[in-house]
Parts: sequence; structure tokens; C-alpha cells
Amino acid sequence: MSALSTAELTAIYTDLHAHPELAFAEHRTAGIVAERLRGLGYDVHGGVGGTGVVGVLANGAGPRVLLRAEMDGLPVTERTGLPYASTDTAVTPDGHATGTMHACGHDVHVTCLLGAAAELADRRAEWSGTVVALFQPAEEVGGGARAMVDDGLFDRVGTPDVVLGQHVMPLPVGVVNLTPGTAMAATDSERITLHGKGGHGSSPEATVDPVLMAAATIQRLQGIVSREVGAGEKAVVTVGSVRAGTQANIIPDRAELLVNVRTFDAGVRERVLAAIHRIVAAEAAASGAPQQPDHESIATFRLMVNDPAASERTGAVLARTLERHRGTIEAAGGTPALIAMPPLPGSEDVGDLATAAGVPLVYWNLGGFDTALFAGFDLAAATGMGNLPDGVAPNHSPFFAPVPEPTLDLGVALLVAAAQEWLDAV
Amino acid sequence: MSALSTAELTAIYTDLHAHPELAFAEHRTAGIVAERLRGLGYDVHGGVGGTGVVGVLANGAGPRVLLRAEMDGLPVTERTGLPYASTDTAVTPDGHATGTMHACGHDVHVTCLLGAAAELADRRAEWSGTVVALFQPAEEVGGGARAMVDDGLFDRVGTPDVVLGQHVMPLPVGVVNLTPGTAMAATDSERITLHGKGGHGSSPEATVDPVLMAAATIQRLQGIVSREVGAGEKAVVTVGSVRAGTQANIIPDRAELLVNVRTFDAGVRERVLAAIHRIVAAEAAASGAPQQPDHESIATFRLMVNDPAASERTGAVLARTLERHRGTIEAAGGTPALIAMPPLPGSEDVGDLATAAGVPLVYWNLGGFDTALFAGFDLAAATGMGNLPDGVAPNHSPFFAPVPEPTLDLGVALLVAAAQEWLDAV
Amino acid sequence: MSALSTAELTAIYTDLHAHPELAFAEHRTAGIVAERLRGLGYDVHGGVGGTGVVGVLANGAGPRVLLRAEMDGLPVTERTGLPYASTDTAVTPDGHATGTMHACGHDVHVTCLLGAAAELADRRAEWSGTVVALFQPAEEVGGGARAMVDDGLFDRVGTPDVVLGQHVMPLPVGVVNLTPGTAMAATDSERITLHGKGGHGSSPEATVDPVLMAAATIQRLQGIVSREVGAGEKAVVTVGSVRAGTQANIIPDRAELLVNVRTFDAGVRERVLAAIHRIVAAEAAASGAPQQPDHESIATFRLMVNDPAASERTGAVLARTLERHRGTIEAAGGTPALIAMPPLPGSEDVGDLATAAGVPLVYWNLGGFDTALFAGFDLAAATGMGNLPDGVAPNHSPFFAPVPEPTLDLGVALLVAAAQEWLDAV
Amino acid sequence: MSALSTAELTAIYTDLHAHPELAFAEHRTAGIVAERLRGLGYDVHGGVGGTGVVGVLANGAGPRVLLRAEMDGLPVTERTGLPYASTDTAVTPDGHATGTMHACGHDVHVTCLLGAAAELADRRAEWSGTVVALFQPAEEVGGGARAMVDDGLFDRVGTPDVVLGQHVMPLPVGVVNLTPGTAMAATDSERITLHGKGGHGSSPEATVDPVLMAAATIQRLQGIVSREVGAGEKAVVTVGSVRAGTQANIIPDRAELLVNVRTFDAGVRERVLAAIHRIVAAEAAASGAPQQPDHESIATFRLMVNDPAASERTGAVLARTLERHRGTIEAAGGTPALIAMPPLPGSEDVGDLATAAGVPLVYWNLGGFDTALFAGFDLAAATGMGNLPDGVAPNHSPFFAPVPEPTLDLGVALLVAAAQEWLDAV
Repeated sequence: MSALSTAELTAIYTDLHAHPELAFAEHRTAGIVAERLRGLGYDVHGGVGGTGVVGVLANGAGPRVLLRAEMDGLPVTERTGLPYASTDTAVTPDGHATGTMHACGHDVHVTCLLGAAAELADRRAEWSGTVVALFQPAEEVGGGARAMVDDGLFDRVGTPDVVLGQHVMPLPVGVVNLTPGTAMAATDSERITLHGKGGHGSSPEATVDPVLMAAATIQRLQGIVSREVGAGEKAVVTVGSVRAGTQANIIPDRAELLVNVRTFDAGVRERVLAAIHRIVAAEAAASGAPQQPDHESIATFRLMVNDPAASERTGAVLARTLERHRGTIEAAGGTPALIAMPPLPGSEDVGDLATAAGVPLVYWNLGGFDTALFAGFDLAAATGMGNLPDGVAPNHSPFFAPVPEPTLDLGVALLVAAAQEWLDAV
Repeated sequence: MSALSTAELTAIYTDLHAHPELAFAEHRTAGIVAERLRGLGYDVHGGVGGTGVVGVLANGAGPRVLLRAEMDGLPVTERTGLPYASTDTAVTPDGHATGTMHACGHDVHVTCLLGAAAELADRRAEWSGTVVALFQPAEEVGGGARAMVDDGLFDRVGTPDVVLGQHVMPLPVGVVNLTPGTAMAATDSERITLHGKGGHGSSPEATVDPVLMAAATIQRLQGIVSREVGAGEKAVVTVGSVRAGTQANIIPDRAELLVNVRTFDAGVRERVLAAIHRIVAAEAAASGAPQQPDHESIATFRLMVNDPAASERTGAVLARTLERHRGTIEAAGGTPALIAMPPLPGSEDVGDLATAAGVPLVYWNLGGFDTALFAGFDLAAATGMGNLPDGVAPNHSPFFAPVPEPTLDLGVALLVAAAQEWLDAV
Repeated sequence: MSALSTAELTAIYTDLHAHPELAFAEHRTAGIVAERLRGLGYDVHGGVGGTGVVGVLANGAGPRVLLRAEMDGLPVTERTGLPYASTDTAVTPDGHATGTMHACGHDVHVTCLLGAAAELADRRAEWSGTVVALFQPAEEVGGGARAMVDDGLFDRVGTPDVVLGQHVMPLPVGVVNLTPGTAMAATDSERITLHGKGGHGSSPEATVDPVLMAAATIQRLQGIVSREVGAGEKAVVTVGSVRAGTQANIIPDRAELLVNVRTFDAGVRERVLAAIHRIVAAEAAASGAPQQPDHESIATFRLMVNDPAASERTGAVLARTLERHRGTIEAAGGTPALIAMPPLPGSEDVGDLATAAGVPLVYWNLGGFDTALFAGFDLAAATGMGNLPDGVAPNHSPFFAPVPEPTLDLGVALLVAAAQEWLDAV
Repeated sequence: MSALSTAELTAIYTDLHAHPELAFAEHRTAGIVAERLRGLGYDVHGGVGGTGVVGVLANGAGPRVLLRAEMDGLPVTERTGLPYASTDTAVTPDGHATGTMHACGHDVHVTCLLGAAAELADRRAEWSGTVVALFQPAEEVGGGARAMVDDGLFDRVGTPDVVLGQHVMPLPVGVVNLTPGTAMAATDSERITLHGKGGHGSSPEATVDPVLMAAATIQRLQGIVSREVGAGEKAVVTVGSVRAGTQANIIPDRAELLVNVRTFDAGVRERVLAAIHRIVAAEAAASGAPQQPDHESIATFRLMVNDPAASERTGAVLARTLERHRGTIEAAGGTPALIAMPPLPGSEDVGDLATAAGVPLVYWNLGGFDTALFAGFDLAAATGMGNLPDGVAPNHSPFFAPVPEPTLDLGVALLVAAAQEWLDAV
């Protein structure tokens, strides 16, 4: 019997959680994954698209079902105070030292997929077909799935018939969200470099101050969502980082902005990106900049669209699975529920796998938070991370803290059930 | 004969220029200085106030004259393209990797003072008294002079009768500025930490965005000089650095500003500092910040005041010295001139030495730039670094580039002449 | 035969269009309406809620159907260049001289309701019950419907069984929008007075500049929609007016903002209004204001909600009516269509009539624009006034210009058909 | 005996104060002046340059001395609460209704010059020459003096040998300021019209919001003085008025700014005006404005320069005159003092008279405020209106309130003494 116990799942999870690795640097994680998969009898392909790992379990004729998890952590310094909190650090590709944290739950995803891989191996008498357990790098920066595809993924492991996956999020344990159709936003991230003219802090009149240029640009960018996007449209423009200068008394010669855009419609996307370029150029002109700003695309995610028919089919089995675990869920203070929230402003590159394969995608959200935090919360009002009860830290927060149990067990059960739904029954 | 030739001065200068060291880390520079001073027969005191070095040449009864130079470079990545440009890097005390550069000419000051020390030793038959050649650390961050005083400077080397020094600046070779009375501004630098609430870039409504808070604060701070300081008053408020976040898609939980304030009057200083605190607090409130901002003082410079009588006495000998070098200056395309510019917005801690000793200070500015760049420039309109001809990069610019010759020779001659004016003639 | 010909409708319309009157000052319009209604045999009640007029045509037992139009124009200077463009002017209640314009189509509504009143009178043999043709004042400022109710409307003319009405908007002729459920936004408008300290333009340091305070406040208010409202929520915050000072060289002592807020959810409304108060107070503090700002509510509209069952019933007859006029519509280049757009960000007080009566409301939008302007426009993408083809001026624009024909005829036909649906057939 | 008693001066003053008239509309004031001058035996020229009045008293051979006062009030609603406060109103040339106020003391100037005209007539036995008492319109908008010159002033009344005048300001009674050389700033005022695209307040995405464009422009303009003008330079950029829209729920199609610039140097003036144009154009571009902004110059004042030699000569007699009135001044709690403040940021067109005539100008400031308000105030720190004790309202404030006595008597005495200094003594 190869399936993992709750204690084993928790041990894997807390180890992964304590040692997050940045995008395309998931070496330790990939090693753990590969070793586990081999131990389960999977045929293992490593180094796919950099640090990606794929385990293949061929078990007779039948459909090929791809289950996907991501491995990368974030450059966030953890502040949860958990006993297994990360104290690791890393240097970002652009040279900033940072703490690292699994602040988006990819440790949950890896653990659940390892558990599901084990259980599917264990139950191989029940099904016929091929399970492809895919662990991708670099979801956070938006290139990992594409990198695996470009590295010959489907030549190596075959083209699947469906792509399945799940993402833990701030919903109470026992709740699963599956949104048919457009489910997550398109994302565009840019690095914008503003050029000023440096000099001594005491003589601004001899300089072109990029700090003020950056400030005016950031304030002006707010007007895109507030004035150029209608109430019936949707967009988010976030400046996640601004960096200029190192000294109080030196006016630097440039400033860097990292800008992140979420849209749900191609026309709105074009309008918002054009407005950013227009404003950035104009604010440089307002400052008398010696040179126009530079724009560099650093990540692009397409809209994530769940196949409606495949979603209906998979949703039914997810609902039955939750119902089957009603006892566990109620013991954790929760209630089984399958909901369909409106499209989320977050983004995902899991769709790149399905699109490249030309097959349906079904991707759901796994509630993984302490049910007590959601006392009195109306699930019908859930809109993702924006409308959370007090005390619930959203994904990417330094306080992000899903509860391992029963989240991991449920996550394993849902993956296994969904996979079996798409495999042939024996 | 121990005096240094032009070639030797240039060699010292280009070596120092290529290897700048940050404040309180001037170990290599201090070593070179100490070795040179010992070679000239000076009694050398090292490690004064950290990395400070003092050479004392006692030569009979008479006045004790302190000549001062600073050794620290800046966290600026040099872009002059000079053959001896710095490619060194360092890590700032707060952990940022940076290029380093002598972007404020302290390499000129060290070289000239070494040259003057050599020449005064060479001419010791001409004078009687004691020469104190002081090389201080950490002028840029405002604590070096004070650190030497606090470390028992005057107990070790005696209390001087006068403090003399010079600073290279963007004036044409052959021009010296000496402003009697208030000559440079008071400076206050603060690190301001703004507290927001972090989260995912797609859900700003669950966060308090410190990037927007920082931008609004920076824009609002402009109103202090534009609206709260009168046309007949003077102040500069520079935000030299803003830093928040590392990722496009994560809203960080804090932002840091480094603010630098220059004033010329106690009342205006109080008013400006109060306005900064008022605005920073209010902008945090406008954002709904969970916590009030933190203010940390990182540098304070007092007004620099040249003693009027000592300035008149020293100015006369500086003017004669320039006249004596008319040939050299004209060969470089210049004209000897001693001018008295209005108070400069820059700051200096050299005054801390004179104040602690209770003796007069005379500190002048040495023109060290290519005269061709100043063709047609009206010296009567010179106001420091604000009103420069095109192509002249001011102090702290990554393009700052004084010409070594004849700047170094003139700088040596001026120091020697001023020192001899205050020593007894034999 | 009392029904109005196309030429008569057009004559009424162009006359009303040329002479718009501001809210609660619709004296000329009310006079025209009352005279027409009397001529048609209606029992006329004038001066209801100020300038409101109601015509009642009792025609046997049966339901009482209220048809509603609004009479007020806007303080906008017309720039359409139409032969019947308004050149009238008026003084607003707060003393500003302004041009006046029917920039929201209330002239269309009055004309169509007069036409419907005529046709229903003409056809009285076909139906049994009571028609209440209500012409209200002051829809634009949000108090007209409420003023009529408060003035004893239903005591005077009886309580209706249903409230029906229509609003012309930038959709092509032949298209009608009817949104069941929440159809229009809640609106809150405030006058905000910012207090500074006035003085001479040359000495800002002796003042607290309310112009800068207003500018910073306006910029900061953009952050509410861009940062504090999620992508899955909806809100609009518009500063429709800012006024401060009259002279270049005098710093005034106050500034006035008129702020307009649209929301579709009670929680979002509370959050947005609280954020406005927070920001306005904080920006006053940032300026060092001598006094906190004043807030005065100047208009409040509740959510407009169409009764779903009544909408379905009425929609069916509207669709049949459009189909019946297919020839006319196609002659104008259009195609008959009944659509259901998402909730509009505009607001209406027509719901106050239905709410006060405790009866269903059905309120639809009448396409009244040149079909050529909409060539290639995808009706499925229509979101109200935000997503318009080039050249289509929205409501409240100085260029707003519905085409009288066949808009007026269609508007009459739709009102008549809807009314007859709710009256008893004979 | 024709000289005016203190009671008569006060009566003239309080009457003028209660009835201020806007620039070029000083009809009542001009009538009073003309009637008084005629009664004193002056040859009166009315309607010079619009509403200007000049009285000429030829009294034998000798110099021609021009004494100048301005007659216009301001569009400010008085809030002093004085018994003789203005309650008058007027309509500005651009159509705004406004209260009117003598908030700059021109009523003091007119009264004092009428008093001096009377006393000089009374003392005509003491002097020989010609007195020209000139009452100009429209100083506040900067065109009155120029209009009189252009209307043939010197052809009508002869070219003077000197131009003398005075301006009341917030200094204690008994203090006079006379700054030789550059004494007041150059001023440029512009009306800037920003073009957006109007529409409904609920659909900003269909508009280009000029309110936000104006706000961003105003904030950006602060950066000129804070970043583009050095600490050793001087400039003031004031946006005295911003006006856009009339309704909360209509986005207007334009915004108007009135901008006022003060400079003391031609180069700084050019730099500041260019920066305003650069910023205004760029902010329009940042908004995606359909049309570039319009700039209209509405007032230009040149630097006001007192002739140094004439100032020395006149200053001596002013000082003696103050000393002669020591008793009166001390009785009012003051001390006689002639001071020389640094150049003031205010502007004046009196210099246009002297420049056109090609003769020296001497123009001084008359302290006219309650000495108790200045208890403990250091006159050496006086910088004009920026550095005032609490409770002293500066020129153009709605609370501006000089004390009539002994200000008026002293103002008369100073004008008479200065005039006699330049006339021939008999």
C-alpha cells in the first residue's frame, strides 16, 4: 500500500513550506518530487522547462489525464509565526536579497499531487489509462507552463485528454469553487524604467528628479481604473514596486516601477495597456525627462477559461467527493459546498498546458482555511481575495496560512476523484 | 625633497578615484594616507573616530593649523567613462548592493592634502608651529568629524588655532569661492517608513497600498517649498530614495522614503520639518494606514559658517596664490578669480571640528572643471550646482568629473599658502 | 381623433428642446403639458410637488396604470448645432449663470407621454381602467418624484397598480433595453467645502492654499475606485465640479467640490462614502487646514429595481410592439431588438413612485439614435454610456442628440402598448 | 485753509472703503476724486486711460512732481466686521458675481493723496513748480498705468521729473520701508483652459475628465518651485483659481486655471514660464485630451526698480518726517523707523509711469497696522507678507484692516514732504 497517511502528507508539507524556492530555482523541491514519484513507480522526467518534473504512470489503454501542481515560492518574508515558517532567503534575478515564502500555497499543491499520485498508484486496479503528474516551475512569473511545453513536454509524456488542477485559497475547509467559462483574469506585468538626471540633493534645479516623476506617474495611473474603465467593466492596475535611489542626499537618475494589470476582456486590456503607456510617457514629458521611459514585459498570463462541459462533469464528482467527506469537514467546523464564484482577478498559467494540448481544462479552488475565521461569512458574497473576513490573510500576504488538516487530505481526495472520473473505470 | 610632482599627485588621485570606499569603510584609503604621512615624517594617529587618520608635524613653537580632507566615496555607479573610472561595488549599511564612486571629489581633497603635507614638510624651514593634516571618514553621512572629536581627537593631536579646508566644485579651474559668514546650509535627513497592508496584486481592496501612499506623500511634500516657504526664504526638500516592493503582482506592506532637507534659518528649518511630519502622517491617514509612519533621523548637518575676519585674512592669501599661478591657469584656458557666492545649499560637517575646538573656520571651494565647459558663463551668476552650463555634471552625479590638472597642483598650492598664512613665518 | 401625428410630435419636441428649464423651474413646460392634457380630456392636477403635473383619464373599472415622464433640463450649454438647439440660459440655485439644455432627453419623454396620452384617449374604447400620465419635476437632482409623493400625489390621483416609464439613451433606433431586477445604480452626491486661509498670491507661506488642497484631494479620491473597490465590485466616484477663487493673484480661502458616487451594493456604498470622508479629512490635515471640511448631501438616488415578473410581462409586449414596427425601424436602418443589458451606472428616481405606492416598476431604455452611428456595433457589448461608438454623444453631453424620428413614434407606441397590457382589455 | 483734518480724512477713507469698485470701473471713486481736486483749485483731467483722474497744480517755474495713487478694489468679500466694511457686490469681466473689497489699501492711497493735494495747495507759498496728483485705475490687473500713458497722459499733463508713491502694508504704524534698486517682483498671470470631453458622471470611461486633468496639473505645477528653482533663486507659482463644472453628476468638458507667477530675474522667469507650459501640455497628454490647452496672458507686471540715488534723497526726507511725527507715532504705541527690506514678491505697475517718462521712481511702503499686533516682532526679519505676526491679515485677505489713524495723517505728511523735497523751495 503506497498511499500517504495524513501524518506523511503533513510532514511533506511542512518541509516544503519551510524551504520555498523562487521561480525556476525549485531544485530542492524538484528533487523531493522526483524521488517520491520514482518510489511510487512513476516514470520520471526531470528538468523539463528548467526545473519541471513529470511523473507518468501508464496503466493500460485509456485516457491520458494530466494533473498539475506548481512548485515555486515567492520573494516574501514570512511573518506567520508558524512553527514551520520559512526563514530561508534568496536573491532575486534582479539582485535584491529577500526572504522566501510559500505565500501562495504551492506547497499545498505539490503535497496534494504527491498524495494523489500515491493513491492513484495504490488504486491502479480500479482504473485504466495513463496518469501524468506534472510539477511545473515558475507559475508566479508566468512562464513555467509555457517553458515545459516549449521544452517538448508532450513529445516526452504524451498529449493528455484533459488538464486538471486545483489552487488553495481563502475559503473555509470543505468549500470548493469551480467557475465554468472565464474563471481568472489575464495578467500583464511590466518593468518600467523612468529616466531622470541625477545630482546632488541640495540642487534639484540641476537635475530631473525621477522620484517625483515616479510619484506623479503612480498617482496618475490610478485614474485608469477610476476614470477610463466603466462600472460594468473590470480591471486592476497595481504598481507592486517602486524603487529609486539609495541615499537621502543624492537625486538618482532613474526610477523603476513594476506594474501589474488584470483584465477580463480583450478590449479593456488593450485600452488599459495603452493608457499606461500614454500616462508614463506624458509624466516623463511633464518632468522634462531627457529620455523616454523603457517598458519591458516581465510576465503575461492569458485569461484562464474552464471548459464548460468538462467543468460540469468534473464538478459533479467534486461535489460527491466533498459529500463523502462530510464527516471530516464537519469535524473541522465546516460544511461541504461546491460554489461558482464570479471570475477571479488572479491569474494562472495552467491554461497554457490545456491550450497547447488543445484539450479541456478544469481548474478549481480548494478552501483551505480555518472555518472559525469564516463564522458568519456569506459564501454567496465571496469574490476571491477582496472580500475576506477580518483575520484571513490572502494569497501573497506574509501572513498567508492555510491549515494543513484536513486541507491536504481533501485536496488529495478531490484530485484522485477527478482523475478517476476522466480515466476509464475497470 | 619630499614635495609631490604633478605626475605623483595624478597617480595618487587616479588610484583613489578607481577605488572609492563608503562612509566609515575607508580602510584602503586610510592605509594609503597613513603610509604616505609616515613617509613624510608626520606623527600618524590612525583609527580616530573609526577610520580617521591624522598626521601631525610639529615644527617648533607657534600656531597649530588644522588642514582637513574627507575620504569617503558615494554609493553611485560611475558613468564618466574615464580610464580611471571606478568599477568597485559595495553593500550599503542597509543591505543594498551598489556601485561606488568618488562623485563628490573627496579623492581630490585627499590628494591635495597629501600634496600639501608633503610640501609643508619640504618647506619646514620657512615656518614655525604645528601642521595637523586630518583625513576624516564619513562626511557624506554627516558623522565623521563628530566621531573623530568624540574619539578624543584634540586630546590626541592638540587643539588647533584655526581649521582650514577646501572642496572641489563645478567652477572653472582658477576660480575659488570663499563666502564669509553663513556659507552652507543646515541639513536634516530622515528615513520614513510608511506602513500599509500587503496582499495579492489582483485584490487591492484587501490591502492598504503603500506604493500609492508613498507616491501621494512625495507629491504632497512638494507643496512645502512651493507653498509654505516664502520667496524671500530658502529651503530644499529632496526625496532621494523611495523603495517599496519587489514584485509586480504583490502589494508590499511598507514603503521607505529617504528625505533630505536643506535650510538656512532656524525658523524655516522648524517649519519645514514640522510640515514633513504633518504631511506624512496625513497621507498615511488618507490611505487608512494600519499604523502611523516611523521617522528615523539619519544625518544632521549644522549651518557651516566661515569666520568673517579669518576669511578676509585667508582670502587675501588665496587671491595672491591664484595670481601667482596665473600662467598655469591661463594655460588651462582660465582666469584667476576669488569670488564670494551666496550661501550654498550643500552641507558640510567640517564646521563640527572648528566648533568643537572653539576656533575660526575658513573653508573654500576650489574650481576644478574644464574651463572650456564654462565658455560664456557669468561667474557673477554662479549659485553653486544649480546654475551650471550644459555638460557640467554636478557633485553626486554619476558623470561628475573634475580635471586632475591643474586642479591638483592648485589645490596643493592653496592649502600650503593658507597654512603658511596661519603659521609663524621664520 | 385626438392622437398626435408625427409632425405634431416633432413640433412639440423641438419646442421643448429649444426651451429647457432647470429642476423645479419647469413652469413653461408644465404649462404646455397641462394645456395639452386638458385638451385631451384628462383631469389635470398641477403644482404637485412644485411644478409636477398629472393627467388622469378614468375610463371605467379596472387597473390604474401610471405612466411617468420627467420635465427638467440641465445646466449645460448646448453645442449640437441643431436648428432647434437651445440658446436659453438660467441661473442655478447656487448662483451660477449657465446655458440650459435637454441633454438627457426629458423632452423626448414628455413628448412621447403626451403622444401616448393622446392615443390612449383616442383608443379608450379598447380598454377599461384609469390612465395616470405623470410629468414630474426635478429628476436630475433627485428630488422630484419624492416631492410629488410627499405633496399627496396618491391622495390626489389614486394609488396605481403599476408604474411604467422609459428613458431615451444612446442605442440605435429600434432597440429597447429592459433589465429585470437591479437595473440602475444608487447615487449619492455631496457638496464638499474645503477651508484654507486666503491671502496674496505672492505670499503663499502666509496662507493655507485651498486650490492645492482641492487638487490633492481630487487625485487622492481616484484611489478609492482603483484600490479600495475590487474587480468584482462596481463603483464610480466622479468629481463633477471644482471651484475655487476668482483671481490669479489672490489665494482664496475655500474650495468647493461636487462629488457624485454610483454604487450597486449597500456594502460597497458604505465603504466608498467612508473612504471619501477619510480622504477629504486627511487631505485637509495634510494642508494644515484651519478647519475641517464641510459635507452637504445634495442628492440621493436609491437603486432602481425592475420587478422581475412585471418586467417579463411588459417585455413581451414591448418586443411584439417593436416587431409590429419593423418596417419603420428598418426604413431607419435599424433592426427591432429587445435586449437586457447589465445594470447601468446611471440613476433614476422613478423607483420612488413605485416604492411609495408599493407596486411593481417597469422602466425601459428607448434607443433613439441614428442607426448609421452604430454600424458594426455589437449590441451584446453594450454597457450603457461607457462603450459607445465614436461620434455618439452620451446623455449629459453638450452634443447629446437623439433623432426625433422615428424615435418619438416608437416611444409613443411602446408606452401605449405597455399601458394597454396592464389595463383591462374591452 | 484747505488742508484736510484727521476727521475729514477718515470720513473720505471710510466712504471709499465701503464702496470699492473693480478695475476700470472706478466711476464713483473717480467722481469723488475729481470733485475734491477741483475744489482745491487743481486743473482736473478725467477719463484718462478709462477712469483715471489727474489733478495738476501749476505753481510757478520748477520741477514737475508726479504723485500717484491707485483707485481699484478687489473681487473679495470683506470679512473684517468693521463698521465701514464693504457690502457691495459686482460682476467680474468674466461673469462671476462677487463681493468687492478694498483689500489692498488703495482707499488709503487715494485718501492720502487727496490729503497731500490739499496740503500742497495750502502750502503753495512754500514751493515752486508743478504738482501732478495722479489717480490711476486698474492697478490690480496690471494695465492701469499703461492705459493712462497710452491715452496721452504726458501730452495732457506734462512729463514729470520724478514719480513718487506709497503703498500701505502690514508693518506697524510709524515704520516705512524703502528698498533701493529692485524692490518688487515681475508678475505674469495666465488663464489656462484645459480641454476634456464631457459626459455623464456615471460613465467616466466615455469622457476625458478635465477635473482630474486640472487636479493633476495643479499638483505637478508645485514641482516647479520645489524642484526647478534653486534655493538661491526666488519664484512663486500660485494657482489662484480653478473652475470646472457646475453639477456633481456631469463631467464638464473643460477646466480653467488662473495662474500667477512671481520672479526676480529674467532667466528664472523664462525657466518657470516654460515649465508651466511643459507641464500643462504634458498633463493634457496624460489625460488623453482631445485638444491642447489654451494659454491667455491676463496680466504682466515688470520688475519694480527704485532709482538708487533718488531713493537715497527721498529716504532722507522720509526719515526726517517720521522723526517729526515721533509724538504721534509713540502715542500709537510705535517707533519711527525707515527700513529697507529685501525685494518683495508683490508687484506694481507704478514703474510703468516712470519708465514711460524716463525719470526716476521712488516708491515706499507705509506701515499702517496696529502696533500692538507687532509686539515682539523683529523688523529685521520682515520679508513682506510672508512673515507676519499672528492676527495680521495681509493684503488681499478678506480680513485686511489697516488702522485709519494715524496712518492717514502720516501718509499725507510723507507724500507732502517727499513732494516738497523734489519741488523747488521758495
